[in-house]
Amino acid sequence: MRRVSVIGIGAGNPDDLTLAAIAAIAAADVFFVIDKPGAREELSRARLAIIDRHAPGSGQRTALVEDPQRDRSAEAYVEAVDDWRARRATAWGRLIARELAGDEHGAFLVWGDPALYDSTIAVLDRIAADGTLAFELDVIPGISAIASLTARHRIALNRVGQAVLVTTGRRLAAGLDSDAADVVVMLDAGCAFTTVADRDLEIYWGAYLGTEDELLVSGRLADVADDIVRLRAQARARKGWIMDTYLLRKPSAALR
Amino acid sequence: MRRVSVIGIGAGNPDDLTLAAIAAIAAADVFFVIDKPGAREELSRARLAIIDRHAPGSGQRTALVEDPQRDRSAEAYVEAVDDWRARRATAWGRLIARELAGDEHGAFLVWGDPALYDSTIAVLDRIAADGTLAFELDVIPGISAIASLTARHRIALNRVGQAVLVTTGRRLAAGLDSDAADVVVMLDAGCAFTTVADRDLEIYWGAYLGTEDELLVSGRLADVADDIVRLRAQARARKGWIMDTYLLRKPSAALR
Repeated sequence: MRRVSVIGIGAGNPDDLTLAAIAAIAAADVFFVIDKPGAREELSRARLAIIDRHAPGSGQRTALVEDPQRDRSAEAYVEAVDDWRARRATAWGRLIARELAGDEHGAFLVWGDPALYDSTIAVLDRIAADGTLAFELDVIPGISAIASLTARHRIALNRVGQAVLVTTGRRLAAGLDSDAADVVVMLDAGCAFTTVADRDLEIYWGAYLGTEDELLVSGRLADVADDIVRLRAQARARKGWIMDTYLLRKPSAALR
Repeated sequence: MRRVSVIGIGAGNPDDLTLAAIAAIAAADVFFVIDKPGAREELSRARLAIIDRHAPGSGQRTALVEDPQRDRSAEAYVEAVDDWRARRATAWGRLIARELAGDEHGAFLVWGDPALYDSTIAVLDRIAADGTLAFELDVIPGISAIASLTARHRIALNRVGQAVLVTTGRRLAAGLDSDAADVVVMLDAGCAFTTVADRDLEIYWGAYLGTEDELLVSGRLADVADDIVRLRAQARARKGWIMDTYLLRKPSAALR
């Protein structure tokens, strides 16, 4: 039976790779590498460098996956993503059927942890649910952007007995629906932290975590929000893309 | 200057170790191993096995840290933890000062990711804040129990555009203060999922993740909650300890 591994490769530092990920890379016959046009080219190259380093087998090959465009202008976010995933499932299913022989082992390399704001598992589930292509799925966990962010800031994510909310920039901009002491924000292209009313919150922000371009800023929102907006815009203009995430933290005194 | 690394070693599978963790283990002069009496002995042995495997240096040594007892009967949870951390800081500070020469590199190996419901970073911060012992701190992220749980169940943690709450068994038992679509529960010694009113929630539960004792159960709370309670009690009786975590998921239909 065909096998497909979804392998978490960490948030940017090549040394975030686990022994399990390295073993899975060494064992794969085909690497499915998603070819994102333009800005994300650098990330594709970084993935290929990991494959080069850890997959020395001469029989191993790479299949470029052409990724359908997502309608980012659509009003209905969930429906737009759903439609995009459906088109992805069709395209990936065809490619896997063509490239992977019946007893072979394919691999998708995913930044961070495959469980967190990544659609690879969901798309593969759709292919399996279709019933046209049978394969065994396994998932190798990776160092998430959240673990990388807190490690680089040398902080714990939660406070004693407190909860942590992981949410999106879109949800934060619409107003927080939780009183969690700590809030991690992912997928925020619009600096939603500037819309937060409580300027006494502490922010721990990081971009290009674990790479040589890494940027880290922390402090009171009132003090550092403008710096982050400026730094972020500069970095994005310079590199053509940005991956960043942040933690919003209620001051400890506010928790007692 | 003294250096102390807090190294995430993953949730139980020795192959969860990252290249960065392995390099930090190889570079350490002294391993501070917390000697938990009784039940957790097996975990200490597993830590020592990792050190044996990845720290072949003849000059490397191990210092056993005697851990102060925590008052688990105290009504005031936060205060009891705070007092325990203060006593930990005093004991650890003395030990580090004694065992680690001025230019040496010490290491604490932490299960999962050091940022998540672990107090090692907080205790070291207290020692540094004390001002009696100067050291440089770095943190190596690890595969968290959450990443391990979702990988073993082969699921994503979040749904499209939705938030995830990470909370404790204690908080869940007191009533959820969030309408997050997915809720991860940590540190639940009392099966708080049995107190949740909505029995249509899906639960993804795992214990001893990534080890040969691993247990996985998933399904509707109404269907599997009793099975988990029974399995958990049996496993705990057999091994003398348990480490488990779970995800409570609103059915997708409830999100539309």
